[in-house]
Amino acid sequence: MSEKWVYLFEEGNAQMRDLLGGKGANLAEMTNIGLPVPPGFTITTRACVYYMEKGGFPTGMWEQTLEALGKVEERMGKKLGDPKNPLLVSVRSGAKFSMPGMMDTVLNLGLNDESIKGLIEQTNNPRFAWDAYRRFVMMFGNIVLGIERRKFEDLMDKMKEEKGVTQDIELTAEDLEKLTQQYKELVKGEKGFDFPQEPLEQLRMAIEAVFKSWNNPRAIAYREKEKIPHNLGTAVNVQSMVFGNMGEDSGTGVAFTRDVATGEKRIYGEFLFNAQGEDVVAGIRTPLKIEDLEERMPEIHDQFVRICEILENHYRDVMDIEFTIERGKLYILQCRVGKRTAQAAIKIAVDMAKEGLISKEEAVMRVDPADLDQLLHRQIDPRAEVKVLAKGVAASPGAAVGKVVFEAHKAAEWGKNGEKVILVRPETNPDDIVGMLASQGILTARGGMTSHAAVVARGFGIPAVVGCEAIRIDEERNLFSVNESVVKEGDVITIDGSTGRVILGEAPLIEPRLTDEVRELLSWADSFRKLGVRANADTPADAQKAFDFGAEGVGLCRTEHMFFGEERVPYVQKMILAETTEEREEALEKLLPFQREDFIGIFKAMQGKPVVIRLIDPPLHEFLPRYEMLLEEVLTLRLSDPDSPQLAEKERLLQRVNQLRELNPMLGLRGCRLGILYPEIVKMQVRAIFEAAARLAKQNFPVHPEVMIPLVGHVNELRYLRSILEEVAKEVLEREGVDIEYHFGTMIEVPRAALTSDEIAKEADFYSFGTNDLTQTVFGFSRDDAEGKFIAPYLDKGILPHNPFEVLDREGVGKLMKMCVDDARKVNPNIVIGICGEHGGEPESVKLCHEIGLDYVSCSPMRVPIARLAAAQANLKTEVFEDK
Amino acid sequence: MSEKWVYLFEEGNAQMRDLLGGKGANLAEMTNIGLPVPPGFTITTRACVYYMEKGGFPTGMWEQTLEALGKVEERMGKKLGDPKNPLLVSVRSGAKFSMPGMMDTVLNLGLNDESIKGLIEQTNNPRFAWDAYRRFVMMFGNIVLGIERRKFEDLMDKMKEEKGVTQDIELTAEDLEKLTQQYKELVKGEKGFDFPQEPLEQLRMAIEAVFKSWNNPRAIAYREKEKIPHNLGTAVNVQSMVFGNMGEDSGTGVAFTRDVATGEKRIYGEFLFNAQGEDVVAGIRTPLKIEDLEERMPEIHDQFVRICEILENHYRDVMDIEFTIERGKLYILQCRVGKRTAQAAIKIAVDMAKEGLISKEEAVMRVDPADLDQLLHRQIDPRAEVKVLAKGVAASPGAAVGKVVFEAHKAAEWGKNGEKVILVRPETNPDDIVGMLASQGILTARGGMTSHAAVVARGFGIPAVVGCEAIRIDEERNLFSVNESVVKEGDVITIDGSTGRVILGEAPLIEPRLTDEVRELLSWADSFRKLGVRANADTPADAQKAFDFGAEGVGLCRTEHMFFGEERVPYVQKMILAETTEEREEALEKLLPFQREDFIGIFKAMQGKPVVIRLIDPPLHEFLPRYEMLLEEVLTLRLSDPDSPQLAEKERLLQRVNQLRELNPMLGLRGCRLGILYPEIVKMQVRAIFEAAARLAKQNFPVHPEVMIPLVGHVNELRYLRSILEEVAKEVLEREGVDIEYHFGTMIEVPRAALTSDEIAKEADFYSFGTNDLTQTVFGFSRDDAEGKFIAPYLDKGILPHNPFEVLDREGVGKLMKMCVDDARKVNPNIVIGICGEHGGEPESVKLCHEIGLDYVSCSPMRVPIARLAAAQANLKTEVFEDK
Repeated sequence: MSEKWVYLFEEGNAQMRDLLGGKGANLAEMTNIGLPVPPGFTITTRACVYYMEKGGFPTGMWEQTLEALGKVEERMGKKLGDPKNPLLVSVRSGAKFSMPGMMDTVLNLGLNDESIKGLIEQTNNPRFAWDAYRRFVMMFGNIVLGIERRKFEDLMDKMKEEKGVTQDIELTAEDLEKLTQQYKELVKGEKGFDFPQEPLEQLRMAIEAVFKSWNNPRAIAYREKEKIPHNLGTAVNVQSMVFGNMGEDSGTGVAFTRDVATGEKRIYGEFLFNAQGEDVVAGIRTPLKIEDLEERMPEIHDQFVRICEILENHYRDVMDIEFTIERGKLYILQCRVGKRTAQAAIKIAVDMAKEGLISKEEAVMRVDPADLDQLLHRQIDPRAEVKVLAKGVAASPGAAVGKVVFEAHKAAEWGKNGEKVILVRPETNPDDIVGMLASQGILTARGGMTSHAAVVARGFGIPAVVGCEAIRIDEERNLFSVNESVVKEGDVITIDGSTGRVILGEAPLIEPRLTDEVRELLSWADSFRKLGVRANADTPADAQKAFDFGAEGVGLCRTEHMFFGEERVPYVQKMILAETTEEREEALEKLLPFQREDFIGIFKAMQGKPVVIRLIDPPLHEFLPRYEMLLEEVLTLRLSDPDSPQLAEKERLLQRVNQLRELNPMLGLRGCRLGILYPEIVKMQVRAIFEAAARLAKQNFPVHPEVMIPLVGHVNELRYLRSILEEVAKEVLEREGVDIEYHFGTMIEVPRAALTSDEIAKEADFYSFGTNDLTQTVFGFSRDDAEGKFIAPYLDKGILPHNPFEVLDREGVGKLMKMCVDDARKVNPNIVIGICGEHGGEPESVKLCHEIGLDYVSCSPMRVPIARLAAAQANLKTEVFEDK
Repeated sequence: MSEKWVYLFEEGNAQMRDLLGGKGANLAEMTNIGLPVPPGFTITTRACVYYMEKGGFPTGMWEQTLEALGKVEERMGKKLGDPKNPLLVSVRSGAKFSMPGMMDTVLNLGLNDESIKGLIEQTNNPRFAWDAYRRFVMMFGNIVLGIERRKFEDLMDKMKEEKGVTQDIELTAEDLEKLTQQYKELVKGEKGFDFPQEPLEQLRMAIEAVFKSWNNPRAIAYREKEKIPHNLGTAVNVQSMVFGNMGEDSGTGVAFTRDVATGEKRIYGEFLFNAQGEDVVAGIRTPLKIEDLEERMPEIHDQFVRICEILENHYRDVMDIEFTIERGKLYILQCRVGKRTAQAAIKIAVDMAKEGLISKEEAVMRVDPADLDQLLHRQIDPRAEVKVLAKGVAASPGAAVGKVVFEAHKAAEWGKNGEKVILVRPETNPDDIVGMLASQGILTARGGMTSHAAVVARGFGIPAVVGCEAIRIDEERNLFSVNESVVKEGDVITIDGSTGRVILGEAPLIEPRLTDEVRELLSWADSFRKLGVRANADTPADAQKAFDFGAEGVGLCRTEHMFFGEERVPYVQKMILAETTEEREEALEKLLPFQREDFIGIFKAMQGKPVVIRLIDPPLHEFLPRYEMLLEEVLTLRLSDPDSPQLAEKERLLQRVNQLRELNPMLGLRGCRLGILYPEIVKMQVRAIFEAAARLAKQNFPVHPEVMIPLVGHVNELRYLRSILEEVAKEVLEREGVDIEYHFGTMIEVPRAALTSDEIAKEADFYSFGTNDLTQTVFGFSRDDAEGKFIAPYLDKGILPHNPFEVLDREGVGKLMKMCVDDARKVNPNIVIGICGEHGGEPESVKLCHEIGLDYVSCSPMRVPIARLAAAQANLKTEVFEDK
């Protein structure tokens, strides 16, 4: 017996997407739950796959098609091609994954020079019938026979011209009959054969055309982009036609069972009386609301509302429904899960859980963590009218308003004076950091998601639009232009880092807030997750924000940022340039009170939750002027003003910077290596931490410092520094007479640390994976160089599936992390292990962290809610798919 | 019952080194094989450890000491302190590991104001007796009581002055008696108590002093340096004294059972009649040869020769023996395995194996691979008289003669003209490479074993002396000076990179050669090893040398060196600066013939053995001028000669170099990343390889090319390039109509490659560990920065046991390599795995490579013999210690 290639709608169900495609499966499901679906059947995706491989229908498929058609004819009491009472069908593609508009559809199939008579008789509407016929000829001619659509449209235009009318609707039945004749002649002229009159021949050809459309170039391109496999094939749905354009008791529309913009629980839809689906989409007439239906056809309205309820209850989700009313009878043509905005997604999930339609677990699983990201940044008020100058790459989310400044140092200066500025640069580089940090937003003309500007901006939560190639920056004249518009230094613009828009003037912004629904959803998420969520926070303000967003501690407080600041920099430089330990200690003594104050602020914000403080990490030369810049200054002075008193000083500085600079600073004298060579620096930091902690402890304020020693690769590094530093801690606590719970641990960010975890864990109370650096060392990628030079081509060529600096690399870095965790727990079961790389706020990576058994993730404050949700989903997914 | 703390010599054996120390164990062994050893006993190291911990003797130790002493007295027929017939003993330290001169010894113990009489009576030699007593008081006063030795010597000097004599020997018995009295008064004055007269009290105090000497500062420092654990403790040997200074029928000496300088089989020793051991060492009288003994005391001579034979046969090695003849009776005081020169070690091992004394396996195990290194470089003829100007760090072995040059570019120029030059620099940097390569040797004033100069020199086998701080370089005047000597540019010097000597003028050199013994030993080694040994060779000359030294293939041929060379550089730069693929291909087309010729030469030298050719690896900017240099030129031109036609060109070059340069070039656009972005470069290389191979194959010359794709971290990189490149290979072979066995593989040099070995091995025919880069990425150490900045302090502080760039890191890198090998073999059992990092020629690392199951190591040609020996030892060690 041959394989079953054809399924009547009654024979399928929603689970059969693989075989029947999404559309066919849903049509089957609706049919089976008793909804008024026009009868029809589905030819399987396997038939399509066979066709693509073998170039012909599989044995038995055509026979099964005819059999199914017979049953449909029976149910409809009509026959395909019948000159009295003809059945018309649509032939549509429908793949497993929605590929909107990518493949082909033929409507009104079954019309020919005979059956048109029946249709006229049936409908008593010759104009409708001829319009249907001429549309069918055009559609069939275009899609099945491959004749350019434009050629049909030209004939239509000529006809309108002859008749002196501008709208299709003004043409009479006779005009359309004539036009149909012309269309058929066009087909004959183009193809050399008559337009196929035999309905079964029409059907066969249409099915083949749909099969073939799976591999049309735009479908292939779409699948490439969406990473849909090419070997799935499409199903073909053959369904009885119903018509919304059979008069004022007919109509057609689309509806969502809830408002997918806001999430509100009300049916939201648009429809037109006496119209076809394409009229609604084309937007020629203003569509009506579902409420209008209630007035004109209250019974149909009630039936529709009931159907919406049935569908929502059945699918347990918001549904997107296409419907048609033919002469007072309602038909459901298609349904699928409705796409929704971020805001709506959250409200709908929470509401449905409260309604008991879905469980809280399901509600948590329903919201894409990326949606939260949208809600957590300032947005431009969508109601505002704005003048969009240009669009670039949306590189760091959020909107920002400020005065345009073209130089980083000026941005720093203006920013210091309380001006809100937008830094506009062709591209940025590490020298621009201070100016970038002082800006509300960043706009660059070059670069992509991984450019320096984009990476820094995301890192610091500064909105950024990058690679906005439409703007032409004239640095000499301090302006940029887009077409005719010119924006000068000091002019106000708005940028939207969530959409990439660059807007002239000040657009009204909406502050981000956690809505009640978000809070509720997150509280559910908290109850479902095992992973803790902490935040990376370097300042009291960041720590406060993190706490408000639900962070359960600080997972990474970078202390080097505490070395910047106008009052501090001179001491920092003095410390670095010191030629003796004493000189260095003197400068450090001045820096101590600043750091202590910072720590007090952060401890306060965290209210006794653990605060992981990382000791100084970057190479010292990062605190000094750049070598090339100094070299340029010195050379210029030597040639132009050799007697300048500055020269000697600059030369000395140049020499020192030259001594300090490194060929590969990422792998150089930094992290714990610095602490081992210059213990006085880290001793000062530890003193500041414990003095801050002691001061608060004396006021009975709970504190929980955790000292993190970075870049350890050998257990001896940790052992050496821990013993020196724990002594400092004990000294302070003893002197101050307080007793505080504290821990010492290390960052795991070089492979050797992970590989020798069974040694290192014996000396560490906690670990935190520094996956930014770990990714760099595991891949041997310098992020600064890789993202500008080869990550993009690697992604293009499919060599890497993701940028590993955004999504944690499961096979390499993840495998190493898992080994590290397992080895550590074997020798130190109480060790607390987290992650503080940027991956800690990325949902896929959070999932991986959950799977390998970390205790917590730590991410930027703004991403804490995302991490909370992602952590819950990771746990629910694990539980659900435990058997896999 | 109490622990056994004291062993009579009869009770111990050579295996008891842990408990009895090296000296005690050997004394026991000799006693038991019937050699004439003066009776005595050993107090265990455990007693010392107890003493150090508890501050007193363990219970029972003193009682056991007295008991053992009683037995010695019985055997000798004398009693300690007996006024008639006194026993004298020596009390010496003796630890498990020899610590020459680090701890203390007391001789002649048992003398006091009573027993001196007995000694006089026994010997009938008052002068001898009083000399013995005054020596004992001094030694005891100094070592046990802590009185400065100088104070005793002052008294001796005063006595000689009074007596108007200059030599000790000229003092009479009376003088010495008086001196003894003065010494005792000195003790009383210094300590407030009389010199201990009670012999047992003397013994107790001496034992305590020896225990304490384990922790004297110089002993601690020595153990730090030699990495001997501090908790071993020393044993104490108490032995009856015999005297070689009892007249002309007495004597004392040291001997080796073979000539430890040359390895010749003849007893080599020195002795003096009527003398004490210290007289031989002091070198006041010219010692006699063993042959002289034959004449004067033929029986003793024969007995001694017999004893030498017995000892060699018993210990199966060359022995270092101390002996004394007391009144015509021979005593053996100590024996240990004799230290020997490299040359002797090899000859002795080979000879003994041939004599059947040891097995060939043992012979192979007896030679330190480092010894081979000494023999494989040019040496300064040891017979020549040379003027040593200064000594620096011996950084790269071998001697070199040449004219002094102070600038790298000049060295390159002179070198090109056939001059032999020694490049002398304060220190070197990567810009100096070309000049360094053109030099016979390198001398720097600054830097250590890990400085740039040292590393590069070792890498290229160029002799180097670095950190020679005694030389003062005056770069402006083109000279250097050492004290009064001035060496100008063009003057000839000789440097010895094996000893660190800098010599004025041309010293005669001896060419290295593999002696017959070395060849024989290596051929035995070959039969015992499982690891293959290949060589790293970039040129036909290197390949030839490698072949001659026994390399079984080329494990790494770096192709980028083939881009240097005067005729090539312009095309290389054109290739890099090309703005289109076509331009680049044009330049590559010119380079192809050069590379092809190089490959032909290497294939020929290797005679069909496998040749692993690594495709281009370094970042392209390494082939262009340095950014800073260009910047300086451009700035200077801008200010001094803004209309210069060069300026625009330099600016363009500067811009391009700026685009190409990277923040962390080690982790940047290099290796396979280059090949993926610019496939035309690697396609040219593969074409050159296969055209070369095809040409030879047509002449029936066997060839075996293996193409190595560097820096792969993701299987897709390898898959992508392999498919492109294998196509090129097939094209060439098809066009040329030949069939050649070839392989494609990859270098494992980033952790991700090792971590995902189960994927990568499916696409690779072979792996080669690039442990230089793998060490960099596993540790997160940039070698260039680490070796100059923090490796040395890390070694000093004991944070790292070795420089991991010299000795492969077992716990981290080694563990990862093992995982990688195991995972690879699981999916591809035929994969061939080697190592081509510098570690491939370092014995410890070779051992690790053997243990983790590599197929071969590859090292510089000069190190091939070392690797052959080390590989054999690794295998023999594994076999011997299999059970551990």
